[in-house]
Amino acid sequence: MENGKRQWFVPDAFLPADSSHGLVSHEAACLLNAGDREARVRFTFFFEDRDPVGPVELVLGARRTRHVRLDDPDSLGGVELPRGVPYAYTVESDVPVVLQHSRLDTSAGAYTLFTTIAYGE
Amino acid sequence: MENGKRQWFVPDAFLPADSSHGLVSHEAACLLNAGDREARVRFTFFFEDRDPVGPVELVLGARRTRHVRLDDPDSLGGVELPRGVPYAYTVESDVPVVLQHSRLDTSAGAYTLFTTIAYGE
Amino acid sequence: MENGKRQWFVPDAFLPADSSHGLVSHEAACLLNAGDREARVRFTFFFEDRDPVGPVELVLGARRTRHVRLDDPDSLGGVELPRGVPYAYTVESDVPVVLQHSRLDTSAGAYTLFTTIAYGE
Amino acid sequence: MENGKRQWFVPDAFLPADSSHGLVSHEAACLLNAGDREARVRFTFFFEDRDPVGPVELVLGARRTRHVRLDDPDSLGGVELPRGVPYAYTVESDVPVVLQHSRLDTSAGAYTLFTTIAYGE
Repeated sequence: MENGKRQWFVPDAFLPADSSHGLVSHEAACLLNAGDREARVRFTFFFEDRDPVGPVELVLGARRTRHVRLDDPDSLGGVELPRGVPYAYTVESDVPVVLQHSRLDTSAGAYTLFTTIAYGE
Repeated sequence: MENGKRQWFVPDAFLPADSSHGLVSHEAACLLNAGDREARVRFTFFFEDRDPVGPVELVLGARRTRHVRLDDPDSLGGVELPRGVPYAYTVESDVPVVLQHSRLDTSAGAYTLFTTIAYGE
Repeated sequence: MENGKRQWFVPDAFLPADSSHGLVSHEAACLLNAGDREARVRFTFFFEDRDPVGPVELVLGARRTRHVRLDDPDSLGGVELPRGVPYAYTVESDVPVVLQHSRLDTSAGAYTLFTTIAYGE
Repeated sequence: MENGKRQWFVPDAFLPADSSHGLVSHEAACLLNAGDREARVRFTFFFEDRDPVGPVELVLGARRTRHVRLDDPDSLGGVELPRGVPYAYTVESDVPVVLQHSRLDTSAGAYTLFTTIAYGE
């Protein structure tokens, strides 16, 4: 039983520029560490026309989840991702974890969610 | 032919605090047992800042599906998951099954669905 | 290069009872046969409290896609799936294909989509 | 570490005929090349009742993402995909990449997103 993978990939990331409904448009990198050892996870952010940013290292406790808000610099060691710009990211972990990526888009007066388990290997 | 996996992981679970449209915001853990043997499945729920809850054991008949409402304590052996709190869960089964996780969010006057096949191994 | 798998599983299927926006709430089982041989695919439908229905056999041409409307008996050899009832399904194929499952829910005056690649093996 | 797969499949592609909210209904094939070598990727588009179109070859830089708008002929070597018609596509790459497929549907006065990691092998 491995409880996941050590490397995860999310190609479609995007923080919408606008918001409505009193809720900020955002994305979350939702991590699950179902194992018995604390995980050190490292995020790297990729763009269309510039070099990657990172790695940003976070700690995820054993038998804990963490829903990392990608629009919150305080959650990413001070890294502020630009809004309205296509990006992508990878997560590397020293122990097996699972990553699911979700977006809430409240731009244009709308309110819509999407999600997918990331690609892991 | 295995008809699935014995362990499944869902990192992004969340029961929105509010509802609209006459429909309660909820999540469903949708299980499919396409095989010929009854499955005993065990849910464990993970949080950001406290120990896991569970396991909660359910039975899934052979060649049956079951869409388990995660906001319904009666579906989870009396366990009431908190609303408005990020969580995650795993499902372990004694025979291979498949798990798909879905959310209906009707908070903020909205109505939006998301889904993903869970991560299995 | 296998161009997919021969067995696919979708645990969360549901045809909403109501519709709006002039568009019927529906689901589609979207198949891609990227290979050079015609595929014979067989659908089986699973329920929570009764025996499965099927198999329903369809043909999918070589190097073709087919988006099978699951609310259309004419697309399913006359099988009419019930609305407002949780179900699930499997697709077996004699050659490798890929299955993606999507829902459009226009009930409650809403309009929301979800999708996922099915679980294949 | 492979950084992905060399062949990806998306069965459910569809460009809605209509739009609202000042935002054109569209789909994006979001690619991530997390590796150190430039990728040559080739798109092939499949239909229900005619031969495939392509391949269309694009270049994806090393350590870059690219969110390819599928409704934009300029992004696809001049290929204009029809609106309102079910299609599917594959992406082949000479180095490992990851593909995620997303749709924004603003038809019928709505605004809804879906996404999934494609099926890779």
